[in-house]
Amino acid sequence: MMTEVKNGVLYIDGVSVPEIAKQFGTPCYIMSEDTVRKNCRKYMDAAEKYYGKNALPLYASKAFSCVDIYKTVASEGFGADVVSGGELYTALKAGFDPKKIYFHGNAKTADEIKFALESGVGRIVADNIEELDRIDGIAKELNVKADISFRIKPGVEAHTHNFVKTGQIDSKFGFALENGEAFRAVKSAAEKKNINIAGVHCHIGSQIFDIAPFVLAAKIMLGFIAKVKNELSIEIKELNLGGGFGIRYVEGDNPEPYEDYMQKIADTVKSESEALGITVPFILVEPGRSIVAEAGITAYTVMSVKTIEKIRTYVAIDGGMTDNPRYALYGSKYEACIANKAGDPCDFTATIAGRCCESGDLIGENMKIQKPEAGDILTVFSTGAYNYSMASNYNRVPRPPVIMIKNGEPKIIVKRETYEDIIKNDTI
Amino acid sequence: MMTEVKNGVLYIDGVSVPEIAKQFGTPCYIMSEDTVRKNCRKYMDAAEKYYGKNALPLYASKAFSCVDIYKTVASEGFGADVVSGGELYTALKAGFDPKKIYFHGNAKTADEIKFALESGVGRIVADNIEELDRIDGIAKELNVKADISFRIKPGVEAHTHNFVKTGQIDSKFGFALENGEAFRAVKSAAEKKNINIAGVHCHIGSQIFDIAPFVLAAKIMLGFIAKVKNELSIEIKELNLGGGFGIRYVEGDNPEPYEDYMQKIADTVKSESEALGITVPFILVEPGRSIVAEAGITAYTVMSVKTIEKIRTYVAIDGGMTDNPRYALYGSKYEACIANKAGDPCDFTATIAGRCCESGDLIGENMKIQKPEAGDILTVFSTGAYNYSMASNYNRVPRPPVIMIKNGEPKIIVKRETYEDIIKNDTI
Repeated sequence: MMTEVKNGVLYIDGVSVPEIAKQFGTPCYIMSEDTVRKNCRKYMDAAEKYYGKNALPLYASKAFSCVDIYKTVASEGFGADVVSGGELYTALKAGFDPKKIYFHGNAKTADEIKFALESGVGRIVADNIEELDRIDGIAKELNVKADISFRIKPGVEAHTHNFVKTGQIDSKFGFALENGEAFRAVKSAAEKKNINIAGVHCHIGSQIFDIAPFVLAAKIMLGFIAKVKNELSIEIKELNLGGGFGIRYVEGDNPEPYEDYMQKIADTVKSESEALGITVPFILVEPGRSIVAEAGITAYTVMSVKTIEKIRTYVAIDGGMTDNPRYALYGSKYEACIANKAGDPCDFTATIAGRCCESGDLIGENMKIQKPEAGDILTVFSTGAYNYSMASNYNRVPRPPVIMIKNGEPKIIVKRETYEDIIKNDTI
Repeated sequence: MMTEVKNGVLYIDGVSVPEIAKQFGTPCYIMSEDTVRKNCRKYMDAAEKYYGKNALPLYASKAFSCVDIYKTVASEGFGADVVSGGELYTALKAGFDPKKIYFHGNAKTADEIKFALESGVGRIVADNIEELDRIDGIAKELNVKADISFRIKPGVEAHTHNFVKTGQIDSKFGFALENGEAFRAVKSAAEKKNINIAGVHCHIGSQIFDIAPFVLAAKIMLGFIAKVKNELSIEIKELNLGGGFGIRYVEGDNPEPYEDYMQKIADTVKSESEALGITVPFILVEPGRSIVAEAGITAYTVMSVKTIEKIRTYVAIDGGMTDNPRYALYGSKYEACIANKAGDPCDFTATIAGRCCESGDLIGENMKIQKPEAGDILTVFSTGAYNYSMASNYNRVPRPPVIMIKNGEPKIIVKRETYEDIIKNDTI
């Protein structure tokens, strides 16, 4: 996102943030299409450069799902990863090529599996034994063959600043590798008439800053592909290495460039494949946060400034956990700025409090902003991922609109909810 | 809620839970209108018995807001506490008497204040100095006089099992009492032409099991009313003591009976008022959770049972943090049961995992249930409060319907969201 301060006012992609707030009201999410596209291109370029097109990035759409974003990433050549019927429905409404859609999830319902198969999605990523049976049964009913991938726990668990190799991952997702569960699942799937084994998948965590755990996971997964080839004579042609690439939320967050990640993994994939005597698989990666998070900000209006002497100052805004529940959920940190005073010193310490009737409704504590007063436009950065997608109507607060700056023009890509929307399913 | 097990199956209010799940699909919220009404009557009866009708319970509708519930509590004689334009809109759609609506919130927007004044709400509960000015200004524009109450921090902070008297509460809500902020606010409001001072309000916490902190808060607030009378010659006729009355989520939760609470507070209010030489104020209380929480359950379908040897068993369901984010937010504990095996021994230890693509999406860990298998109907208890109201469309999962059992018949009071609903505001 191109940010600059002109005449004391914050601009993004050449557009004044207070002007957007005035035009569309607050709270509102504001996103930069340029940034989304640039982020996509980093992955696409790296896929071409290091894999010679033998790779495809999938947009992990749970980060931010709406019709417009699927159109944008599709036009950049991306596939999509969806985890529900709702995300699939949205992608299809955007005209997304179903063959490039990968259907994930640890608890897909029968209706969703049917919907996915009828839509002709590229892959269903099977999570568990009951689901394999369910997919096979529904595929049989529909007289189709389901192309599936397996969600596998490789025994590598990464966190922002470290990672661990566990004997057996304690996770609700997928088939464990170490105890033979994954191997048995592949064997069992091979015997099912309406299932075609297409690939394997792993995902080692979120907001990861190191490349090493990804390299380790790739090695382990390739070893599994070799084992399946050697012992079951089944060639798994596709390796999905998931997502989890870190982004910058606050100072001190230093993710590796995605190109470096792609290069190092590619080197590993090629050398390991050769060493193991397997064909280099088609590689998939699933960036979500790293495509959209830094492409988005949220603009609020300050409603009051409440200083409690010797304790802290609460700055109350007209949004909060309903549009950004990440502080309430994880204590996630953000940076903020008063858009109409962006040139002023950023030395006021504030606790930014949301509008919900709940003490925990905060955007952050001890945040540095310009001196605030009621009526100011407060901007929170890096809110493009897991904000709109996790928003609620708690306290029956309408969800904000999403304004996408396209070619220097702010366009509504998701309309603001109305009160009428909120009660639409209530029996009157 | 009347629960019983017949032929190994869970019934509530005489209706089979697996039958409701079959008829309406899962996940679904199921509520007992009888229980809601009984809970309302406890408060109404106590208000009459201990205050001789010089009191009114207000339903704190943030706990569960939809058109039907406002109709139900209104028919029991309740007023309502709303904290947003959306809750106000819903209450009005239900035909709620606006005079019995109290408008709360720490960050009311100008549009909301206007909406509240135009609707003729009973009270606006002012939270801060900027807001007082805002209310006065908008009331002037509308040529009305706003009846307001003041949200005051009494310096008592209560938690489930204990409470503290703090010198000055660190809270985003209201005016502090100890440092004179509350007194100055009343004085300032008295000088405003379009404001009429009607009452004072306090709220000391949530899910409180003791009566003592409520008694202490009442004493402090009465002292403030006396001070305002003596020093400003302003008679504050209304004292709103807020809510926060605990409910039973799990074994070991032992809230005091609400009647006892009402009685003890009434005794204090009367004796203190006499001692202070003030007229006994009209008393308001704001139960929310204690009206609806135990009146509701959620029914899910088990999608898979994944046992990780020596670690734990994950039971994956077709809902989770999207319909009940309270474990993800607070680590809240619940009890559960397999509705179609309710007569079996409840000795299986499970981690109940939601369907979202997120490790933290759990309903609970180490929960005791009957031996589960895919296809079972898993029921979670005491989900009537802060579940539907906090639900999201994360992963674009549609929000479940709310089925209210009325006179032994399950009725839809909130319809299930459709995929079409979810994309309704997307620009296509």
